[in-house]
Amino acid sequence: VSQILATNNVQELVDRLQSGDIRALAKLITLVEEEPRTARMVIDAIGNVSSEKQSHVVGIAGAPGIGKSTLIDKLAEEFRRRNRTVGILAVDPTSPFTGGAVLGDRSRMNRLSSDEGIYIRSMGTRGELGGLSRAARDAIKILKASQKDVILVETTGVGQNEVEIINAVHTVVVLMMPGLGDDVQLIESGMPEIGDVFVLNKSDMPGADYTMAEIKSIISLRSPNQKGWMPPVIKTVGLSGQGASELADAIDRHKAYLQKTGELLVRERKAYFSEVLNQVKLDLTRLVDDALKSDNTIIELLSRCFELKNNPYDTAEKILSGIIERKRDQIH
Amino acid sequence: VSQILATNNVQELVDRLQSGDIRALAKLITLVEEEPRTARMVIDAIGNVSSEKQSHVVGIAGAPGIGKSTLIDKLAEEFRRRNRTVGILAVDPTSPFTGGAVLGDRSRMNRLSSDEGIYIRSMGTRGELGGLSRAARDAIKILKASQKDVILVETTGVGQNEVEIINAVHTVVVLMMPGLGDDVQLIESGMPEIGDVFVLNKSDMPGADYTMAEIKSIISLRSPNQKGWMPPVIKTVGLSGQGASELADAIDRHKAYLQKTGELLVRERKAYFSEVLNQVKLDLTRLVDDALKSDNTIIELLSRCFELKNNPYDTAEKILSGIIERKRDQIH
Repeated sequence: VSQILATNNVQELVDRLQSGDIRALAKLITLVEEEPRTARMVIDAIGNVSSEKQSHVVGIAGAPGIGKSTLIDKLAEEFRRRNRTVGILAVDPTSPFTGGAVLGDRSRMNRLSSDEGIYIRSMGTRGELGGLSRAARDAIKILKASQKDVILVETTGVGQNEVEIINAVHTVVVLMMPGLGDDVQLIESGMPEIGDVFVLNKSDMPGADYTMAEIKSIISLRSPNQKGWMPPVIKTVGLSGQGASELADAIDRHKAYLQKTGELLVRERKAYFSEVLNQVKLDLTRLVDDALKSDNTIIELLSRCFELKNNPYDTAEKILSGIIERKRDQIH
Repeated sequence: VSQILATNNVQELVDRLQSGDIRALAKLITLVEEEPRTARMVIDAIGNVSSEKQSHVVGIAGAPGIGKSTLIDKLAEEFRRRNRTVGILAVDPTSPFTGGAVLGDRSRMNRLSSDEGIYIRSMGTRGELGGLSRAARDAIKILKASQKDVILVETTGVGQNEVEIINAVHTVVVLMMPGLGDDVQLIESGMPEIGDVFVLNKSDMPGADYTMAEIKSIISLRSPNQKGWMPPVIKTVGLSGQGASELADAIDRHKAYLQKTGELLVRERKAYFSEVLNQVKLDLTRLVDDALKSDNTIIELLSRCFELKNNPYDTAEKILSGIIERKRDQIH
């Protein structure tokens, strides 16, 4: 019964989402953050929503201190001037420990919240390994179902979760700033290969010309695997909003390019594959945790093998076989 | 045939390890770093080595900049003065990108290498998620088989891999230094609950008394889950070696406590459980990668489900069932 109630409840939230209810939107994202089981119910219900619009999803990657959130807020305002609705998803795996995301979010909310055409949300890590990218992907789907024209996903671009999230977007914007070490950071992250648009933020700082030349040389070196798209480099100053309009133009040009060449479908296919395989790995990991909770024989086997000083690899293989066997019986 | 040759080769290395050959020791650690399959062969062969000694494994956790490696070198020298042989394993998940570990290692080698009683080795991340803790645990087993009296494992103590590695040691030493934010860092890492010995390094710096009081208050707050062991706080100055002798004393006292109370066996049992379950998860993740490589039907299924816009959770479940079925057939 509680399952039926929950499903009804989720369906009601999705109905309210479609009629533009912001609280339903917030609640649905909380549901996908909380637990894989509720997330799955939400995504099931979302699947029935027919989108009239094709939301364009933009990943914006940059190291801490580059001024990501300030620039993204200006970019969001620029898109609003163009009459597009905007969703911002700020993904921060170090939250909730630092508290930075929560506070930052609140002040951003206050600054932007007078505009109902912008929805902003922070997401931090909770629980399972790889769970943040799963939740972020689901949140993107909810923002799509809420008919946002543009979805801006803010991430550092470094780390397993971030790379997974970047796999889920249409256009990748890579943020840089003048100064030592940025080139190294860029190269480490693998971003030169996947950036579609490059931004030199804080371009009024000393050393901007040098860093600009560095970025251009890095782009020129990359393998020409994209049919006919040459990544532009846009100069911005996040605080004043300078360059935000040029950045919006570049994102729109890239969107048109993706549609014209059929690359949009290629990317969505890749994103789907990556999402499903990530989910398979999460499901497998959960199998182990579930088996431990419900099956005393695993602990008994572990105790016996420990006393016999069995090789851990052999013990792991035995447990794996047991889990496979058990799961298979459940399937049949 | 190549399998038999490889096994013979590994067995020969283990024989040489037992006769004290340092190059065999280095080669065996390289083998466990490289690939799970060779690692398993090594651990199989190691399993037959009867240890006369019970190596004591000490995890030393501290943030970058605290002076971990300098202090650990002094501690190693102190143990050498007590006629114990020492293995040092410096685990750095950010290597090889920074290059720091490699360079640091070389200069440490030069400083310590005149003494054959100390073996020092750095390990960085390569390949699979969770693979570093697996390789580090295997390296500890090799150092045990080489009859080292003390094994010092150096880690930042933060992150998934580091926590896994800390699960594998007998005594946990937590390093701090005077200054702002260390208390926060300590609390975040969960170290107050698991530290057996606390060290205030750089204790000649301003603010040492304040940080000392902070550490003591944190220790006094923790749950009294350890029978009769009150974690001491040792003041050290890594550069001069001051306090290294007191730290060695504290580690020895903790070792005696573990043996006397039976807690040693409890910890080894916990470490074994944690190691095996980590390995089960690694094996499961590898199942997915192997299945993708050898089984075209998964890609076909993914393509079909993408075109039908199937819910990724449902598609993941289908693929999971396929992998379970396939693996089960291999087992039988």
